[in-house]
Amino acid sequence: MCSSKYCIVGSAIRIFTPSRTTGAPPSTRSYPAMRWSERNCDQCVDNLQNYCPKLTLTYNRIQPDDTVTYGGYSDVMVVDGDFVIRWPEDFPMDKGAPLLCAGITTYSQMKYYGLDKPGLHIGVVGLGGLGHVAAKFAKAFGSKVTVISTVGKKKEAMESFSADGFVISRELQEMQAGSRTLQGIIDTVSAVHALAPLLSLLKPHGKLIVVGAPEKRLELSAFSITLARKTVAGSIIGGLKETQDMIDFAGKHNIVCDVEIIPIDYVKTCKADVKYRFVIDV
Amino acid sequence: MCSSKYCIVGSAIRIFTPSRTTGAPPSTRSYPAMRWSERNCDQCVDNLQNYCPKLTLTYNRIQPDDTVTYGGYSDVMVVDGDFVIRWPEDFPMDKGAPLLCAGITTYSQMKYYGLDKPGLHIGVVGLGGLGHVAAKFAKAFGSKVTVISTVGKKKEAMESFSADGFVISRELQEMQAGSRTLQGIIDTVSAVHALAPLLSLLKPHGKLIVVGAPEKRLELSAFSITLARKTVAGSIIGGLKETQDMIDFAGKHNIVCDVEIIPIDYVKTCKADVKYRFVIDV
Repeated sequence: MCSSKYCIVGSAIRIFTPSRTTGAPPSTRSYPAMRWSERNCDQCVDNLQNYCPKLTLTYNRIQPDDTVTYGGYSDVMVVDGDFVIRWPEDFPMDKGAPLLCAGITTYSQMKYYGLDKPGLHIGVVGLGGLGHVAAKFAKAFGSKVTVISTVGKKKEAMESFSADGFVISRELQEMQAGSRTLQGIIDTVSAVHALAPLLSLLKPHGKLIVVGAPEKRLELSAFSITLARKTVAGSIIGGLKETQDMIDFAGKHNIVCDVEIIPIDYVKTCKADVKYRFVIDV
Repeated sequence: MCSSKYCIVGSAIRIFTPSRTTGAPPSTRSYPAMRWSERNCDQCVDNLQNYCPKLTLTYNRIQPDDTVTYGGYSDVMVVDGDFVIRWPEDFPMDKGAPLLCAGITTYSQMKYYGLDKPGLHIGVVGLGGLGHVAAKFAKAFGSKVTVISTVGKKKEAMESFSADGFVISRELQEMQAGSRTLQGIIDTVSAVHALAPLLSLLKPHGKLIVVGAPEKRLELSAFSITLARKTVAGSIIGGLKETQDMIDFAGKHNIVCDVEIIPIDYVKTCKADVKYRFVIDV
């Protein structure tokens, strides 16, 4: 889940802490959006540190020793070895870094909700930071991918991300033509939007997975889920083991984010002109 | 799914049509809320006739031969043998009939969403027609059951339905004490109600299954599902095979509806004074 176009909560930096997660010796590593968790709670023992009730995120949180997490805008840092993952060899650090948030958030949900099987037809709503990564993972899983967007990004979706279809969600006819065609949808939109039209695109037993973070409440019609046993679910990033699996999978399939490298000073301009993901070169 | 306290869409009547579903010879049978479906669509071949796009329900629908379905308020009738199920021996027809809607609607969802495993802690929201049956099935599956209600039905829940806990949803302290305690919730309420407080009762990865049918849209906060990978899902009745399984299970575990037998004329009074389910003695 990522609420802002600016969030860059995973960092790929050289960390000289031995990794207790992978057991591998220190080398190029990275850390995801998590900094500390209980380790012995029911979520942590299931390798779901991201759902630990005492999880400390990387940015602006107070750790158990009362120190504050200041994020990952640094070239070197010392972190707990449990929260370090191994970086795939020759995998680019700039284009790979945002995968530690956008990548695991979409990968984990497709895995958990069974949307990673070859031959499925998956919808991706919104072609931004999360959406373009979701489309890449879905293609790598062997799915047919249809991008659903409010704007005309068809050429981009088809050419840059090899989407098999494109639907403008404001066009009633296009939406009706797509009715009952998808097994799953990854909904990456953080603006308030209607769920019912998206649910209508799902086949019976289909799943709409919310990974955006609209601040206001969404409207859900009970009939839009009950009449064909549909699911609306959501989740946030992924556990450490799965984050390692995700980055290994990305390395193997050459899945990277489309990024714009910015200097740290650019952040001060607060311009919301990112296309997919900014990466700060520190 | 059942939108009205008055719906009595399953009928337990003596039907003299051979059953093609069970293969058993004609005897006491019943038919669920479905009257006709395609038989060869992808839903029907999976024994999910209830999700067939051409499903004809029992009441006031037009069948493929242009005849109208007039429901089941009759003592004898002729129906398609595929849509007939075998009634358990010595199982009461009055107390059993509503199971063909309320029973299968709650049973099927607990099965499909994995909420039928012994040792789970299940919440049931609303202690009406669907809710009291959901509580009975959950207990029979070996779950601990907490009833959540806006009104003080604690004595009834604990004594009549052996609930293990009772929470008044309007009492903030009670709700907070129940936070993160349930693996699943069967939400049977058809009035508009807040989902977020219910979702807060779920453990991570918990499932809120909507089987009521609020006519107005419900409000869903993305954060209430994403932060702990929760699910909101819904569904309607069940397939024919599962309806047979349900009624056999009910027969074995002596699960019946709490009913009030009314004469047909009582329907004309339109009094909404049903406690659990009305059954019309025709």
